[in-house]
Amino acid sequence: MKPSIPKGTRDFSPEEMRKRNFIFDTLKSVFQLYGYQQIDTPAMENLTTLTGKYGEEGDQLIFKILNSRIHESKDKDTLQKEFILSLEGSRNSEVLTEKALRYDLTVPFARYVVQNRNDITFPFKRYQVQPVWRADRPQKGRYREFYQCDVDVVGSDSLLNEVELIQIIDEGFKQLGVRSVIKINNRKILSGIAEYIGEENRIVEFITALDKLEKIGWEKVKDELVAKGVSNSAIKEFGNIVGVINFDNEGKIKFLKSILLDSERGKKGIEELEIIFNYLKSIDIHASIEFDLTLARGLNYYTGAIFEVKALDVEIGSICGGGRYDNLTGIFGLPDVSGVGISFGADRIYDVLNQLNAFPTDTSQSTQILFINFGEKEELYCLPLVQKLRTKSIKAELFPGSAKMNKQMGYANAREIPYVALIGEEEMKQELISLKNMLTGEQIKVTFNELMEKLQTSNPIHLPHHY
Amino acid sequence: MKPSIPKGTRDFSPEEMRKRNFIFDTLKSVFQLYGYQQIDTPAMENLTTLTGKYGEEGDQLIFKILNSRIHESKDKDTLQKEFILSLEGSRNSEVLTEKALRYDLTVPFARYVVQNRNDITFPFKRYQVQPVWRADRPQKGRYREFYQCDVDVVGSDSLLNEVELIQIIDEGFKQLGVRSVIKINNRKILSGIAEYIGEENRIVEFITALDKLEKIGWEKVKDELVAKGVSNSAIKEFGNIVGVINFDNEGKIKFLKSILLDSERGKKGIEELEIIFNYLKSIDIHASIEFDLTLARGLNYYTGAIFEVKALDVEIGSICGGGRYDNLTGIFGLPDVSGVGISFGADRIYDVLNQLNAFPTDTSQSTQILFINFGEKEELYCLPLVQKLRTKSIKAELFPGSAKMNKQMGYANAREIPYVALIGEEEMKQELISLKNMLTGEQIKVTFNELMEKLQTSNPIHLPHHY
Repeated sequence: MKPSIPKGTRDFSPEEMRKRNFIFDTLKSVFQLYGYQQIDTPAMENLTTLTGKYGEEGDQLIFKILNSRIHESKDKDTLQKEFILSLEGSRNSEVLTEKALRYDLTVPFARYVVQNRNDITFPFKRYQVQPVWRADRPQKGRYREFYQCDVDVVGSDSLLNEVELIQIIDEGFKQLGVRSVIKINNRKILSGIAEYIGEENRIVEFITALDKLEKIGWEKVKDELVAKGVSNSAIKEFGNIVGVINFDNEGKIKFLKSILLDSERGKKGIEELEIIFNYLKSIDIHASIEFDLTLARGLNYYTGAIFEVKALDVEIGSICGGGRYDNLTGIFGLPDVSGVGISFGADRIYDVLNQLNAFPTDTSQSTQILFINFGEKEELYCLPLVQKLRTKSIKAELFPGSAKMNKQMGYANAREIPYVALIGEEEMKQELISLKNMLTGEQIKVTFNELMEKLQTSNPIHLPHHY
Repeated sequence: MKPSIPKGTRDFSPEEMRKRNFIFDTLKSVFQLYGYQQIDTPAMENLTTLTGKYGEEGDQLIFKILNSRIHESKDKDTLQKEFILSLEGSRNSEVLTEKALRYDLTVPFARYVVQNRNDITFPFKRYQVQPVWRADRPQKGRYREFYQCDVDVVGSDSLLNEVELIQIIDEGFKQLGVRSVIKINNRKILSGIAEYIGEENRIVEFITALDKLEKIGWEKVKDELVAKGVSNSAIKEFGNIVGVINFDNEGKIKFLKSILLDSERGKKGIEELEIIFNYLKSIDIHASIEFDLTLARGLNYYTGAIFEVKALDVEIGSICGGGRYDNLTGIFGLPDVSGVGISFGADRIYDVLNQLNAFPTDTSQSTQILFINFGEKEELYCLPLVQKLRTKSIKAELFPGSAKMNKQMGYANAREIPYVALIGEEEMKQELISLKNMLTGEQIKVTFNELMEKLQTSNPIHLPHHY
């Protein structure tokens, strides 16, 4: 029997954990710099909390947990009937399952806010870094368990929040060493465009068409719209604005202002965008900001700004995204709490950094020195020395047991430990330590104090590669 | 509909997270100091990996995950039959469920080691900090989701590992500010005692009896043993050794040496204990170490040393425990890999620190200054100032939107932000900042550079209370 793990899930080795922790720690410290506070919610939520929140397709992907001791809870006939009902999909049998694994961090956050509304000071700025589970068909880069890093503020409709999130994105990727472009759009502008075209209920089709324009050209886009049953007059109106996607930010705004004169929502969207751009002028932003009309993620969900971040140097999907939602907590009975948030995709960021070879070479978590174990007498001699190094925050190990020299040296090599201390009979007599530099092979004799000094100065915290 | 979470699970508020992170961060840094490396395993394991590893009672407490799309996988009749079979407990229906949530970190670790044996350098020193799930009946202090912090080394039978774990326990609780006693026993000594009494298969009864001795007295213990069918001669032999539990460590060892002359296992156990005590003499240990014969946790599991840690100043169960196991990976087909490990109980440690009021007052994660928002012009003036503070690693916020003054001050109070900056028309003209100390109420005018200096020096990382 060869042990294995469920498909779509992963183990993380020490090296992978060091890299992942670099991402998590960097982002967390940025979130804290902006005054966001961490919360955790349980892996399990009540099934009723989750169902109906992710659309029909999403609901299918929720991992449900079998109730414990179901056989104790009712007679077998009743259970069987419940089982058949749940198979037929006519309802979720609470006898079979009433709990499920969280599908994202947003719905649990909304649930948290409503449940704890009396203890929370608004605006509530929170971040959350936890795994989520989805019963998706596993494939390259898509997992059934993956981490999300969410940053949200609820209880404030100020556009300063949007600006702050852009700053967090910019600072986060700067510190991670990922060059990026931040794309921004506004749901209200999309509504305005749909009004202008005269097809308010078909925004999705037009956005998809805009998105395909560069790839397949206007003629083919037109064909597709016709095939979808869009009227000729609507296609003609749409044709008037497709050119705008190649304009720069100011050009787009200017053009849209000219055509959205009659749409209150559209005008409001442009105004919001202009205010955000105006705020951004007063501060330093490293990434480029692009007003992208084709950006439409989670259209039914967002009500204002929409964000998406792309890495410049690696071909990969979006590495961060989010937006403004005006009624997230409404689903749990607390209306009129506006919020805006973003989610960093830890797995994709990991892939980007790996491809760019941009992880710091040392994340200061690794052992700095290994004491070779020559036997009983030497162990007792080394133990207090190793302990003394640790009181100076020097990460040190004494090899457990006097294994063969090449095994111990092999351990140091495999663990990439930069220094090895050899203390045998002679060294004990001399009160010296033979210190071997594992990178250069150089070996010198030093006193313990010299060793301690050397290790304290050779412990730089390597910073990531900045651009 | 008032939203809620499944019983036995918990949300963690920002304040609780700060406290929990203090525990996790402290322990992780100690683990790293001793050369342990972090791994993560998935929340879900294959059901076959978990079942049969925790005894019959444990198996009942495993949370199983309902297969997704079960209704697609077979015809309804087959499913129904499978369901009935699984209800009857005759077998786990893989149609219904083939995955489960991990029950502890030990079995997944064993699975990980066997699965990755070719990539691992032994001895493998790993730590793991993740939640586990158990379908226990929820009660005070017992949860269905809780975190374990496990430290193990596998692939080395050196007793130096036991010593190192004792050091880690000692250093960990010292840094957390928890005075503790480390209890130690050895499974081989318990076997020796059972041999001496002549009841090798009844160790558990005798250990339980020893444990009760102080509470109910020798006469009642004797009655219970009789009731359990223990022979009179065995009870007499047992009577010879009950006095030993009041001896000091050396006295216990001396006495046991005298009676376990004929038990090879017993003698080996005493030898191991003596070697460990001898190592410990060469280093500083703050906690007291107590050889406790009544310590028997997970008897069927451990093969050598057994550890348990009690807090001295709070009445609570063990806050850390573990031991040596000689064949953990054997269950997955990799025999002869000896290991030893301990597990810190994060929830109990949290309760201890809370009761002792020993959490650091500031864990350096909180916002240091809030800029009051007086309106559009002031926002644009403040934004670059706040950004500049953040480049100096000063955690700063600008209130989003020009809400009423008492709302903004209330926010600063609720968030326990120590400084508030007020910049209105006058301050902008003077290029000064009115700085209010929220603790003293004192308000002064400073330049931006003075403010920056003040905040950088007023950012001490408060250390926990040490004993």
